[in-house]
Amino acid sequence: MAEKMDDNVVFVGSKPPSVYAFSVKTIFAKDINEIIVKSRGKSIINAINLIEFLKRSNQIEVKDIKTSSIEHEYEDKKDRKIFVSSIEITITKK
Amino acid sequence: MAEKMDDNVVFVGSKPPSVYAFSVKTIFAKDINEIIVKSRGKSIINAINLIEFLKRSNQIEVKDIKTSSIEHEYEDKKDRKIFVSSIEITITKK
Repeated sequence: MAEKMDDNVVFVGSKPPSVYAFSVKTIFAKDINEIIVKSRGKSIINAINLIEFLKRSNQIEVKDIKTSSIEHEYEDKKDRKIFVSSIEITITKK
Repeated sequence: MAEKMDDNVVFVGSKPPSVYAFSVKTIFAKDINEIIVKSRGKSIINAINLIEFLKRSNQIEVKDIKTSSIEHEYEDKKDRKIFVSSIEITITKK
């Protein structure tokens, strides 16, 4: 069976950092050597703290960092639009 | 006189985004075409929101994004170390 497309994606939200560090380790243990760490809004700092921790402990290298923003529309206020920033950090096993 | 080294640096903290957007505009108006947007800790999201706004309004292109972390030591608790993440986003005028 083909590998699912997001087998190498870790979404970082507001859980404790150890949860995401464990996800990264688990994926690398499957011999997948490149992971995309994704996050958005206020959780972006958690994603950056995670990759900085993994860098300091010599587990990864950062290959690429991209940011983007997605438009959100409110159901009740169609005229009000907000943009939510997101980040994608591509890391490789060291 | 030589240009100051940080003439092209904008530090993003917790002020309203318009403040930093204005700083970027002011620097570009001086014919400096490359700016480094720096931020750390919880303000990182403000720096990313800023560059996403500038991208959407077609004012800039992002050339490079780097993250790092700096170790902090407490005066009173020498054994306790924390790391603060920081970001450097290099942007160019469009």
